[in-house]
Amino acid sequence: MTSDQPSLTPGRSIGARTWVVADGYIPPESTGPAPAMTSHDSVCLLNAGSADAMVRIVVYFTDREPAGPYVLRVPGQRAHHQRINDLQDPEPVPVGVDYSLVLTSSEPIVVQHTRLDSRQAANALMSTIAYSGS
Amino acid sequence: MTSDQPSLTPGRSIGARTWVVADGYIPPESTGPAPAMTSHDSVCLLNAGSADAMVRIVVYFTDREPAGPYVLRVPGQRAHHQRINDLQDPEPVPVGVDYSLVLTSSEPIVVQHTRLDSRQAANALMSTIAYSGS
Amino acid sequence: MTSDQPSLTPGRSIGARTWVVADGYIPPESTGPAPAMTSHDSVCLLNAGSADAMVRIVVYFTDREPAGPYVLRVPGQRAHHQRINDLQDPEPVPVGVDYSLVLTSSEPIVVQHTRLDSRQAANALMSTIAYSGS
Amino acid sequence: MTSDQPSLTPGRSIGARTWVVADGYIPPESTGPAPAMTSHDSVCLLNAGSADAMVRIVVYFTDREPAGPYVLRVPGQRAHHQRINDLQDPEPVPVGVDYSLVLTSSEPIVVQHTRLDSRQAANALMSTIAYSGS
Repeated sequence: MTSDQPSLTPGRSIGARTWVVADGYIPPESTGPAPAMTSHDSVCLLNAGSADAMVRIVVYFTDREPAGPYVLRVPGQRAHHQRINDLQDPEPVPVGVDYSLVLTSSEPIVVQHTRLDSRQAANALMSTIAYSGS
Repeated sequence: MTSDQPSLTPGRSIGARTWVVADGYIPPESTGPAPAMTSHDSVCLLNAGSADAMVRIVVYFTDREPAGPYVLRVPGQRAHHQRINDLQDPEPVPVGVDYSLVLTSSEPIVVQHTRLDSRQAANALMSTIAYSGS
Repeated sequence: MTSDQPSLTPGRSIGARTWVVADGYIPPESTGPAPAMTSHDSVCLLNAGSADAMVRIVVYFTDREPAGPYVLRVPGQRAHHQRINDLQDPEPVPVGVDYSLVLTSSEPIVVQHTRLDSRQAANALMSTIAYSGS
Repeated sequence: MTSDQPSLTPGRSIGARTWVVADGYIPPESTGPAPAMTSHDSVCLLNAGSADAMVRIVVYFTDREPAGPYVLRVPGQRAHHQRINDLQDPEPVPVGVDYSLVLTSSEPIVVQHTRLDSRQAANALMSTIAYSGS
């Protein structure tokens, strides 16, 4: 890493504090070597600002009360890609079950939702910038 | 589910009341075990608020009058993933036909559109947050 | 098609008049039966209003002047899914070449961009709501 | 390219000056002929205006300081599809590593993020319009 050019603008935050992923689902089977090709749902977070972001994730289901909050700390000027499969506290998110996510952050962040589905012989991918609330 | 932390903010609604999916299409063939790998188009809804949301879906076609409304009830603090394949009232949505969707909700919601296409030997996926109107 | 419920709100327009697709590309090979599995790039348009929409598409390239406009008419309350492969007037859009699209419409519409890539043995899909300009 | 119709509106800029891709990742293996089927992450840029756009890309990581800026020039009325794999100055972006991107442009542009993943026998695709900041 070199460059002292002003366009790096260290510490300039970008994004929003509330984000929603409506289509959450962890495919329950996988094909190929773990962990790279394990079927997963991910939220990818960028904290472009200088302060740490405390991010809370609440998981909503079809037929039960929400789970969470799951708490992540994303340092300033860092990316954090979080597999939903790996959330354990306060409880694992079940596989093969429909859910939605609301993320709230203490600092502006940007959230992108991505799924890798390797239930069949070649993996499928989908991705979208999440919905940013006010 | 534990936690009485304030970040769960029960009942705080997020989103918009009008949503559009422009690329609707149910692939007419499938490979793999039903129903998981059946080709489908889905709308995934989150109602993060506390009041029930009444959601009406109108389906637009290329060369005929719109169909609907299809009516869904999404309870407060619940996710609802709806396969378009499963809409039956007032009429099934035909497979292998281009369409678009307009969703209108009595409460703010968030809508994500996802397709699983298993016409060929390994499934393909695509997803996007839908367009939110005013 | 039944229903005289007011939620059909015939003629209520939704969307924007300027839309951008930045990642345009028609994969130059295909696997599987034509035309369903022919590799293609599509723009899917919804005109939810009551008046016809005249839509003009300009194609931008890396190293030549833009092509177009290509002109489409989308009747009120109709969907229109347009394969870029099928645009012929004023000139075909070349396959295997990077491009971007700007769509301008006389009426508010919603635009979603989708690619089916069947160069390899199982098709891949990608989709996103396009960028709506002012 | 023919047409002197006013809808080509040469030089009308569209978009925003700040864009974010949160889910950056270059899959480390590939199946199929290079370079078309080489696994890659791309940012696709449209500069619909008449002035050249100077675009700076900063890459954020999980556990190190950001890299960049990488500088691109996109002429007016031109598309530019940039594989992240091909960024070399000031340093290559490592494969198989999570990252996020911030793009800042001197002129309004539109940015779409696309990944082709050919680690398994048939390629997967994902795409989304990037997040546009203020």
